[in-house]
Amino acid sequence: MKAVNGGVTKPEGFLANGVSCGIKRSGKPDLSLIYSTVPAVTVGVFTKNSIKAAPLILSQKHLKDKKARAVICNSGNANCYTGRFGHLYAKQTAELTARLLDIKPAEVVVSSTGIIGKPLPYKKIEKAAPRLVKGLRKSGGTMAAKGIMTTDLVKKECAVTLQISGKKVTIGACAKGSGMIEPNMATMLAFITTDAAVNAMILQKVLKEAVEPSFNSITVDGCMSTNDMVTLTANGLAKNLPIKTAGKDYRLFSEALTHVCMDLAKKIVRDGEGATKFIEIGIKGARDYRQAKSAAMKIANSNLVKTAAYGSNPNWGRVGAAVGSLGFNVTEETLKIHFSSFKKKNIRIEVDLNLGKTGATVYTSDLSLDYVRINGKYN
Amino acid sequence: MKAVNGGVTKPEGFLANGVSCGIKRSGKPDLSLIYSTVPAVTVGVFTKNSIKAAPLILSQKHLKDKKARAVICNSGNANCYTGRFGHLYAKQTAELTARLLDIKPAEVVVSSTGIIGKPLPYKKIEKAAPRLVKGLRKSGGTMAAKGIMTTDLVKKECAVTLQISGKKVTIGACAKGSGMIEPNMATMLAFITTDAAVNAMILQKVLKEAVEPSFNSITVDGCMSTNDMVTLTANGLAKNLPIKTAGKDYRLFSEALTHVCMDLAKKIVRDGEGATKFIEIGIKGARDYRQAKSAAMKIANSNLVKTAAYGSNPNWGRVGAAVGSLGFNVTEETLKIHFSSFKKKNIRIEVDLNLGKTGATVYTSDLSLDYVRINGKYN
Repeated sequence: MKAVNGGVTKPEGFLANGVSCGIKRSGKPDLSLIYSTVPAVTVGVFTKNSIKAAPLILSQKHLKDKKARAVICNSGNANCYTGRFGHLYAKQTAELTARLLDIKPAEVVVSSTGIIGKPLPYKKIEKAAPRLVKGLRKSGGTMAAKGIMTTDLVKKECAVTLQISGKKVTIGACAKGSGMIEPNMATMLAFITTDAAVNAMILQKVLKEAVEPSFNSITVDGCMSTNDMVTLTANGLAKNLPIKTAGKDYRLFSEALTHVCMDLAKKIVRDGEGATKFIEIGIKGARDYRQAKSAAMKIANSNLVKTAAYGSNPNWGRVGAAVGSLGFNVTEETLKIHFSSFKKKNIRIEVDLNLGKTGATVYTSDLSLDYVRINGKYN
Repeated sequence: MKAVNGGVTKPEGFLANGVSCGIKRSGKPDLSLIYSTVPAVTVGVFTKNSIKAAPLILSQKHLKDKKARAVICNSGNANCYTGRFGHLYAKQTAELTARLLDIKPAEVVVSSTGIIGKPLPYKKIEKAAPRLVKGLRKSGGTMAAKGIMTTDLVKKECAVTLQISGKKVTIGACAKGSGMIEPNMATMLAFITTDAAVNAMILQKVLKEAVEPSFNSITVDGCMSTNDMVTLTANGLAKNLPIKTAGKDYRLFSEALTHVCMDLAKKIVRDGEGATKFIEIGIKGARDYRQAKSAAMKIANSNLVKTAAYGSNPNWGRVGAAVGSLGFNVTEETLKIHFSSFKKKNIRIEVDLNLGKTGATVYTSDLSLDYVRINGKYN
């Protein structure tokens, strides 16, 4: 596996574009399209929030057969809590995109991110769509990465190449954060493309596995989004022997995909709303993974731990109090806590629960004055 | 029942004092004592955090027989995560207080609040104790209320009188917040006194019931403390017919005690670290109380909801996303959300889950720039 420059258009047969359609008052890009020139397998992982945005509900329906070759995503408006018209506009977005690309509406994944509860300005999408499609190009990956950003300060892309059955396979991706990042994959979007040939069921399995230690192990503010999704589109143009079982080729592909997801997940945390620190929390000595992860997440979501990190003010009492609040059988004597320096930009917190032999690692950012400023004014 | 001025020394037979012993660098009062001149029944409710401060463990032991007549509390240092010496100093504090008051060590409740993980400067307590005891007086309630404050901006006292079996009964109390306030009574202290005659088991029952809708239904930052406790001391000097069953007198007393707890709980929220708003969250339509309260707490602890309140920027999407993240069977269509104006100092958020007939109310503050400033620098 080799890291290379590029994003969603790095694999063979993918084109992309991003344009400004006027949803964002800033005039920045807010409409992106990623397209496979040939039919493709697409699988997704979605937010577990009971309240789901309209485009998410539609995309889950479209991906039931695991076939899709286009992803259209607007930023600046989540099209969530938007009632009947929200569902209608999501559907119309899929139909419009399909018409312009000459594919079926069910082959289109629709995604939105931004403010909740305001009507989606569909007319703007309708007007910009022909220009969006016309501009699809091999060099358009970065524009697509920019068009999905909300409060992100930097675009997030990643690409790797690897060899599978003697063929060069490429995986590319873009992602956005940056607040509302939470367990269960919450509040972020990532669109991953690959030219690998992979069986649909296996593709779903490998994506789910790659998402757990990456997008499902990051948190910015513990708030679970209504719009999060990660999709993985595989078009088979690398001509490798199709991956159909969980053997050696599966492991190679899984390792590369996990690398891509980890890279993007960490980029999301580093660019968390107002983030000034990157905090890695490692738990060991847990009875099982579930316990380890719940302890790690409790620490990661503690406002007292996060403000301590912001203030470069190490305080293991706050870490102990966070773990203790879960009701596990730990005491001052059995719980072991280690810190790296809080003065540095990267902080590592290690906690040994002394209850068993399993561990987990999660990543978070600090809670800064800018987090409050950003989220107090966002509208 | 009638609200009256005063605090812990309002009931018959209670004296109190608060002094500066030098734990706080500011020189503000940091050592308080509340004392019943006659033997008394005392019951307590304690944090559910697995990590418990040394004085809390000791006080739980002392209250096993539900007898105590003195509460000594220092602020500025939590005496938590302080190892063997922490336990020794807590014990020595009880012994010293008992000796000076000529009572048994087991009749002394010891309490600490402040920073975790730093050795308790016991010498300072030892030196100040004689002066603390000598100054015990009927007018000392307010000094005691001041001596337990940490980041609190205002002292918190409350008192009420009521008639029970033809006798005037008084309940008085003081409390402190102000960060780390959370479910399970977390991160606050309240010391309640009464001259009512109440059977010990009944006193425990009535306190537990009064704590649930008050101290257990407030949250500032969702962080559960290692030091929280509420104690209730009853010395019987009102000469009412002792309350021994859950009858009419019980209900009168319970109503008055709940009023005192609610008043102090709301004062704690209003004085939450950096708080600029008071937010009341009412849930209805839940299957049961547990579900209602978990929904209310999820909203109350959502940093996105709290920053929206701070920014006077109503956003019901954030409320919906918080409830949705719990995995209840709610959708955009079934969940009903109502707000009062976010521009005012008092905000009410009402959510109907449409799943059943039970409700719950919790109280919280907003997440402000000052919260981050206070907790980034606290040491």
